[in-house]
Amino acid sequence: MTVTAAQGFTAAGVTAGLKTSGTPDMAVVVNHGPSKVAAAVYTSNRCKANPVLWSEQAIKAGAASAVVINSGGANCYTGAEGFATTHQTAETAADLLGVGAIEVQVCSTGLIGLLNDRDAVLAGTRAAIEAQSAEGGRDAATAIMTTDTVAKEAVAHGDGWTVGGMAKGAGMLAPALATMLVVITTDADVDAATADAALRAATALTFDRLDSDGCQSTNDTVLLMASGASGVTPQTTAFTEAVTAVCHDLAIQLLADAEGADHEIAIEVVNAASVDDALEVGRSVARSNLFKCAIYGKDPNWGRILASVGTTQAAFDPADLDVALNGVWVCRNSGPGESPDSINLDERAVSVLIDLKSGDQSGTIWTNDLTQAYVHENSAYSS
Amino acid sequence: MTVTAAQGFTAAGVTAGLKTSGTPDMAVVVNHGPSKVAAAVYTSNRCKANPVLWSEQAIKAGAASAVVINSGGANCYTGAEGFATTHQTAETAADLLGVGAIEVQVCSTGLIGLLNDRDAVLAGTRAAIEAQSAEGGRDAATAIMTTDTVAKEAVAHGDGWTVGGMAKGAGMLAPALATMLVVITTDADVDAATADAALRAATALTFDRLDSDGCQSTNDTVLLMASGASGVTPQTTAFTEAVTAVCHDLAIQLLADAEGADHEIAIEVVNAASVDDALEVGRSVARSNLFKCAIYGKDPNWGRILASVGTTQAAFDPADLDVALNGVWVCRNSGPGESPDSINLDERAVSVLIDLKSGDQSGTIWTNDLTQAYVHENSAYSS
Repeated sequence: MTVTAAQGFTAAGVTAGLKTSGTPDMAVVVNHGPSKVAAAVYTSNRCKANPVLWSEQAIKAGAASAVVINSGGANCYTGAEGFATTHQTAETAADLLGVGAIEVQVCSTGLIGLLNDRDAVLAGTRAAIEAQSAEGGRDAATAIMTTDTVAKEAVAHGDGWTVGGMAKGAGMLAPALATMLVVITTDADVDAATADAALRAATALTFDRLDSDGCQSTNDTVLLMASGASGVTPQTTAFTEAVTAVCHDLAIQLLADAEGADHEIAIEVVNAASVDDALEVGRSVARSNLFKCAIYGKDPNWGRILASVGTTQAAFDPADLDVALNGVWVCRNSGPGESPDSINLDERAVSVLIDLKSGDQSGTIWTNDLTQAYVHENSAYSS
Repeated sequence: MTVTAAQGFTAAGVTAGLKTSGTPDMAVVVNHGPSKVAAAVYTSNRCKANPVLWSEQAIKAGAASAVVINSGGANCYTGAEGFATTHQTAETAADLLGVGAIEVQVCSTGLIGLLNDRDAVLAGTRAAIEAQSAEGGRDAATAIMTTDTVAKEAVAHGDGWTVGGMAKGAGMLAPALATMLVVITTDADVDAATADAALRAATALTFDRLDSDGCQSTNDTVLLMASGASGVTPQTTAFTEAVTAVCHDLAIQLLADAEGADHEIAIEVVNAASVDDALEVGRSVARSNLFKCAIYGKDPNWGRILASVGTTQAAFDPADLDVALNGVWVCRNSGPGESPDSINLDERAVSVLIDLKSGDQSGTIWTNDLTQAYVHENSAYSS
């Protein structure tokens, strides 16, 4: 179940010829209302791609009728010509849908610095609008894939209303072709402020805590569109929980499909003075190449964890840290604890638990190991 | 030429049995005066190893008679027992030299979280003091190696005075066994304030700008000892330049010997609003695994450079950045520039030039590529 799980949405995926592989490379998701409420979060990278520059302006009205997505080219650092391609994509879709261009969000993913063939993008936009159907969600989820090995979809049901979503990518720039793109749809009848608040709360707890390889995309977009077609206005809490559940589901799917990864690692930091402290510590460990190599090598090397904790500004006593790996407290009071001999790192799922003993806040960052396959995939192909 | 190039110093390297390989693993450098001036900089990692906890207190008097270094064990996160080993090392050396323990600096390098055999360390300390000679510099430089493939030494001559040095490691935690250790000696007659100022100026321009793999050691130490044996007090500028030259020489040797690396990459950032801005941008690119993989793959992928620049807070216009790779301006005004087809990345030396067009300051960060060999070496062995 996917972006067409909620009432009021159609979608399609088509082949526009942007990818040399000849696989589907353009998708649309269309909101038929009655409501056109939308909210979005975009990359915080200051060097943003053209579709992000367009979409972050267009979303300001809190409404969107459709999103057009192309894979096969990020349209980033392509100057005025690239921006014109994005703008004409929105205009082409808007004309066919009988709405204003400002109601069309645009996303792109693929190699940075190359201009997409504009005629192909516009023809693909027309073909996708033509092909839209209430069963098109899976096709759309497939057409936005780059180095993804599986299409990523999720759904959550409320009392008479539904939230569905699709995603591509893995973490930040983890997939070689850059970009995490996520489209979430709902038939709940919510206003723009509620949609925006729910989306920001959900992404802060999910996608923002994914740090596969520390690289931040120029194209990241998470878009939520609400049709109101169910006629139900959920409790804000229930709605936020459903959006968060879909985001969490998709985030874990992104993590599991990260290029070249052998392990999915949850780094949970507890008893921190603040959530920010917990996340700073977790992110620091998640970005340690030496720690990530150790997990790949199935080596319970807790010294590399403490060495990363020590580079942060979080509140803790350097002489009083505890660390558990897969439930074994290998480090107590910043010294050797239980024997790591019983730790088995054969499974893909790995848990790291860091006790800062400095408060009652906590947070989890998800990351992957660093493998030879990651280096191979990101060095052997221009992407 | 090495730490015994300057008058007034002896050194030795011996085998204490700390390394399972049976190669030399303990070194001393002794200052015979007449002056005992010393200055040092240590890791800024908050989780510091026991020898750093000892040495940063001991250096406060601005004097040192000797440094005792062991490889084969970092003595980090080893608690009170580990600190006692460090302290007894200093006391053992001090007794034999007829000085106070506070005049003995201690450095360790190797696996984190394991206690060194104290008897072996103390016996090695005695053996090294016994073996010291004015020709012992090379032996000392060899005994401090871990995964280093070559001993690293440098020398600079002033007018009647000399600065010599030795180093082990590569960048931050780049060598799997952690730690950059550097000992610099001079027979110049300088006071403690001059030595400290010269060392801080030199390390800020050299070791601090080395970022091989973004991982910061728990044991990093750069120690300068001045004997005054030449009887010459150099101009401060000339002295600082000579110390900087030795530090630069050793830093480049560390970079060239970084584990698994195929390329040495200089990232020069020009026309920045401040030196801090230039260094922030350079360090951000140096820590991008995707950029480092691209260089390993000989792929002139400038989009990954701009994507990293965009994650910084430096002053620049995201739409107006220029980037050159090995002298070819592949990116102009944040869009495609000259064709990258002529760029040859077969050579180990790679230059990246980033023009921020926002001021007149500049700075260079040195880094390595990310290779399958790096992942292998840091995953296959516990270190």
